[in-house]
Amino acid sequence: MQRVAIFGVGLIGGSFALALRRAGFAGEIVGVSSPRTIEAAIAAGVIERGTDAVTAAKECDLIYLSQPVLGILQAIEQYGSLFREDAIVTDAGSTKEQIAGAARTHVTRALFIGGHPMAGKERSGVQEAEAGLFEGRKYILTPLTKDAISSAQFRSFSKWIEGIGAHPVILDPAEHDRLVAYSSHLPQLLSTALASVLGEVEGVAGVTGPAALDMTRLAASPFSVWYDIFLTNRGNIEAALTKLASKFQELQLLVDSEALENEFERAREAARRLRAKELG
Amino acid sequence: MQRVAIFGVGLIGGSFALALRRAGFAGEIVGVSSPRTIEAAIAAGVIERGTDAVTAAKECDLIYLSQPVLGILQAIEQYGSLFREDAIVTDAGSTKEQIAGAARTHVTRALFIGGHPMAGKERSGVQEAEAGLFEGRKYILTPLTKDAISSAQFRSFSKWIEGIGAHPVILDPAEHDRLVAYSSHLPQLLSTALASVLGEVEGVAGVTGPAALDMTRLAASPFSVWYDIFLTNRGNIEAALTKLASKFQELQLLVDSEALENEFERAREAARRLRAKELG
Repeated sequence: MQRVAIFGVGLIGGSFALALRRAGFAGEIVGVSSPRTIEAAIAAGVIERGTDAVTAAKECDLIYLSQPVLGILQAIEQYGSLFREDAIVTDAGSTKEQIAGAARTHVTRALFIGGHPMAGKERSGVQEAEAGLFEGRKYILTPLTKDAISSAQFRSFSKWIEGIGAHPVILDPAEHDRLVAYSSHLPQLLSTALASVLGEVEGVAGVTGPAALDMTRLAASPFSVWYDIFLTNRGNIEAALTKLASKFQELQLLVDSEALENEFERAREAARRLRAKELG
Repeated sequence: MQRVAIFGVGLIGGSFALALRRAGFAGEIVGVSSPRTIEAAIAAGVIERGTDAVTAAKECDLIYLSQPVLGILQAIEQYGSLFREDAIVTDAGSTKEQIAGAARTHVTRALFIGGHPMAGKERSGVQEAEAGLFEGRKYILTPLTKDAISSAQFRSFSKWIEGIGAHPVILDPAEHDRLVAYSSHLPQLLSTALASVLGEVEGVAGVTGPAALDMTRLAASPFSVWYDIFLTNRGNIEAALTKLASKFQELQLLVDSEALENEFERAREAARRLRAKELG
């Protein structure tokens, strides 16, 4: 691996560049972004230089697409056939099935490996980038075929993912989207719903404690990112919302009954299991 | 103030003792708890000694009731008439209206000032106590009458609350309960509902990121504490649940429309305001 191109040098793309460098990558890292972002990214020591998308697509052996989902889809459609035969093309989009579909059609020569790092921060932008952002986090990889997993290229990329401190998890793109509707998109919508309700209750800011702050943190995420997610994972999100709504109705009926204790115990156990998996 | 009694020496009561000491309180701090807790609290340097409830009620000039809500109600009923005329009795219960009602009836001589520190931790118990737990946090005070606010005793207690690093906020007990149903009990139920749903989705632990972990943290709280809260704030909690459920239905209908952006923006703004108030 000689030259890496980051398309969309924001928090994730910038952190990937820094992490790669820290993991020992000695080649060149170039960026494809707006002139202002390129300037900031060079100043922050995240990339060496900016370039245009066509040149990057033709010259680099690792292409890291880290725009919002619709931007990734567009890049795959526009430059898919330009990526070199020996190149690896990956992305960091939050949904994977539509991206996999586009890659199957348009990435004609390079190996495409979908990706989704389970990492993030409240604030975005390249100035927030950190070499340690992926440390200890899961990093979902969604190759287009099962066969791809045993290729030397896939193994090499997976090694780099371990090199940046993350834990690779291999999933089918459709299964990924079904699961993140629950683990990521549902929490987002819940946080937004809660913040929205709290915003309508006068005086509530006077009694805000850690619970309300924790639970409305995600509500501060920019809509632009989420809109792409909704557009590309609508069916799964609707299913997750329906499931949560019926669970919520159950809880409403249980508020004054002892059965609430069972529900609490089940939830407590589930919360514990999520944490055990996270640490394990 | 010569002698302080902590009833229920757990995370909150123990932290109050440590914080009081750090703020310069030079008198004696005694504890009323199970023998095992008293032993742990003495070992941790939180209290000087244990005593029985009747002796503590008769001898101390600050009584700090920090059991779960039903325990506080019971202590007020049993010992309310024993508290000295010059004593201040306060509590750290999560709901305030029923406690205020009990205090009006049973605390016949001492000044009763309801309290609710907006502080906590995932884990409970005196071994988790910290002198800095209240630092920078709001500390709601719910005196039984408006007149009480101007008394020298109230002012003195409020000074101690500032001394432990907290920001006193004065509220009517009923208004407190209405507001915390939104800011505290609703987040708890949401977290429990989400954890419960996640527990039913096979494979979800493989894609758990910071969002799901944040949003299920509260679900790990022990039911024992929450049960008391539900029993003593049921009407307000039901109203808050209804409001959230209808907001949620709105979001379900909006998932694929542009109106979702407005809802996101409103929520984002509300989340920001909660944080601004918190820091201000």
